[in-house]
Amino acid sequence: MPELRLALTRGRGGAALVSGQSEPRMAVVPSGDEGLNAAIESAGGRIVEAGAAQGIVWTEPGDPQGLIDLLSESPATWVQLPFAGIESFVAAGAVDDSHTFACAKGAYGHATAEHALTLLLAGARRLDVHVRAKSWERGDLGHPERRIAGTTVVIVGTGGIGSELAAMLVPLRARTIGVNRSGKALEGAERTEPAARLDELLPGADFVVVAAAHTRATHHLFAAEQFARMKEDAWLVNVARGGLVDTNALVAALQSGAIGGAALDVTDPEPLPDRHPLWDIPNVIITPHVANTWNMGLAELRQLVARNVTHFAHGEQLEGVVDVRLGY
Amino acid sequence: MPELRLALTRGRGGAALVSGQSEPRMAVVPSGDEGLNAAIESAGGRIVEAGAAQGIVWTEPGDPQGLIDLLSESPATWVQLPFAGIESFVAAGAVDDSHTFACAKGAYGHATAEHALTLLLAGARRLDVHVRAKSWERGDLGHPERRIAGTTVVIVGTGGIGSELAAMLVPLRARTIGVNRSGKALEGAERTEPAARLDELLPGADFVVVAAAHTRATHHLFAAEQFARMKEDAWLVNVARGGLVDTNALVAALQSGAIGGAALDVTDPEPLPDRHPLWDIPNVIITPHVANTWNMGLAELRQLVARNVTHFAHGEQLEGVVDVRLGY
Repeated sequence: MPELRLALTRGRGGAALVSGQSEPRMAVVPSGDEGLNAAIESAGGRIVEAGAAQGIVWTEPGDPQGLIDLLSESPATWVQLPFAGIESFVAAGAVDDSHTFACAKGAYGHATAEHALTLLLAGARRLDVHVRAKSWERGDLGHPERRIAGTTVVIVGTGGIGSELAAMLVPLRARTIGVNRSGKALEGAERTEPAARLDELLPGADFVVVAAAHTRATHHLFAAEQFARMKEDAWLVNVARGGLVDTNALVAALQSGAIGGAALDVTDPEPLPDRHPLWDIPNVIITPHVANTWNMGLAELRQLVARNVTHFAHGEQLEGVVDVRLGY
Repeated sequence: MPELRLALTRGRGGAALVSGQSEPRMAVVPSGDEGLNAAIESAGGRIVEAGAAQGIVWTEPGDPQGLIDLLSESPATWVQLPFAGIESFVAAGAVDDSHTFACAKGAYGHATAEHALTLLLAGARRLDVHVRAKSWERGDLGHPERRIAGTTVVIVGTGGIGSELAAMLVPLRARTIGVNRSGKALEGAERTEPAARLDELLPGADFVVVAAAHTRATHHLFAAEQFARMKEDAWLVNVARGGLVDTNALVAALQSGAIGGAALDVTDPEPLPDRHPLWDIPNVIITPHVANTWNMGLAELRQLVARNVTHFAHGEQLEGVVDVRLGY
């Protein structure tokens, strides 16, 4: 019977799986995680070797080829990627229609939104200057410290990160504008605008937070033209992917004073090489892709995996299924 | 008639003023402010010289003696201090029972809470390390970046700052504990504890935010014993007054690793002298008393002054009346 079911589910990427898997056989590879094992078992799953697994949780973000090799020898029909951004797996050809791929898109939204808020506040309050200072007298800041309250925050991308950030900005009394493709209203925002109107919104923004998926359509969404439209005291915050921003154009905008500053958790290239100009521009804050570290996201990941094991057992649609065509 | 009214109100500090001042005569000194003038006039007041004023708005935080000298020659019965902390005026003997003194306690709570949140997040996300870094590889942080979500934040003082901060922490999913004298529940907090229990709460705190008034009773509220009770990865945030913290004990606690870090907008002494040890401890973030700059607070101040002019005109209790005995 299991073989028949496997045959039925192959080639149906993104579709609901067959039902009746009362005790899904799951492998956590290449490196196991006791918490993930416990989560799988709590949801009625059983931990097995990859060669006998119906579902794989692939824990190594830097090794898509390892996953490809594994899948060629595994009967698994479902692959759970515990990452929110899976471009490297798409680029390597690891994600295709022959399996159902689920990723953790949205699961880490809250942790990443918290980091975006940190960077936004750090820019507003000029921690770029204060953290580096060795004296109480701070000299000329160019643009002084200011409150978020009353400022206009444009959030580009209203998925897990954007929606959590909008909620965090409500008690801070920011005027939040969401930007997305769908036109679906961002809760907590003053209004939500279609992506096509982004350029019109930029001149009114005090802070722009990049929280969109990185796809061919959003590559270099922020380039010279966008920076030219922004206020000279506006800050750019990027917690999504480095490739959404044209780094050379950003450096030029910062050096010319076209914008007020940049706070980046992601860069392009990443890691950002030593002696890259961004390291030496004073009004820049860089954090090394730590908005959602493995430890920060573990609680949410375990819950997600447990829910997906339950869905799988009942033949239900999984959460976070990858749209192979869109690449996320 | 005005003289009779003045006689009636003198010596009644903190009590309601006489009614019937339909067009209160107000002076904004020593330096005027067009926005304050406009606020006073919008509330039905008239701008006059100090010698003819019923109410004085004293705009110079560093000159209590100037206020004393002015009051000796002014018929004013009401003094509006546009500052939240007025210890220097109390210490100089400028605040007494012969006038009604109103200060801006609570008015700047939101701006200061926003800064407290900035410092709290900066500590959690280790911006002390990241902002100073010149390389993507961050080495050993000691205590890694973490989320606020799920951590315990103890807020000492539940006035304007504490209550706004508690509201900001709700969408961040922190477990907030308020500490105050009154026992009045802090909205948004998991619970509120009496000040006498502070020492018992410290071992469970991940972040401690000092947001209390600085009085004789709260001087050095945080000293060696308190730091010894805190977790070794806990951060202390102070946005209130430097004197609430024993600076030498704080330096020792940071140097010994008794606590995880400190983020301070206020210090003792203040300004913090160049080459003070706090400047050289890596896990310290210092901002030079900018939680609520004059510009940040102007909107709230103008609203407060306008409301108090209206109250004065109607013989009502003013907002923010100073309790001379408590000193705030």
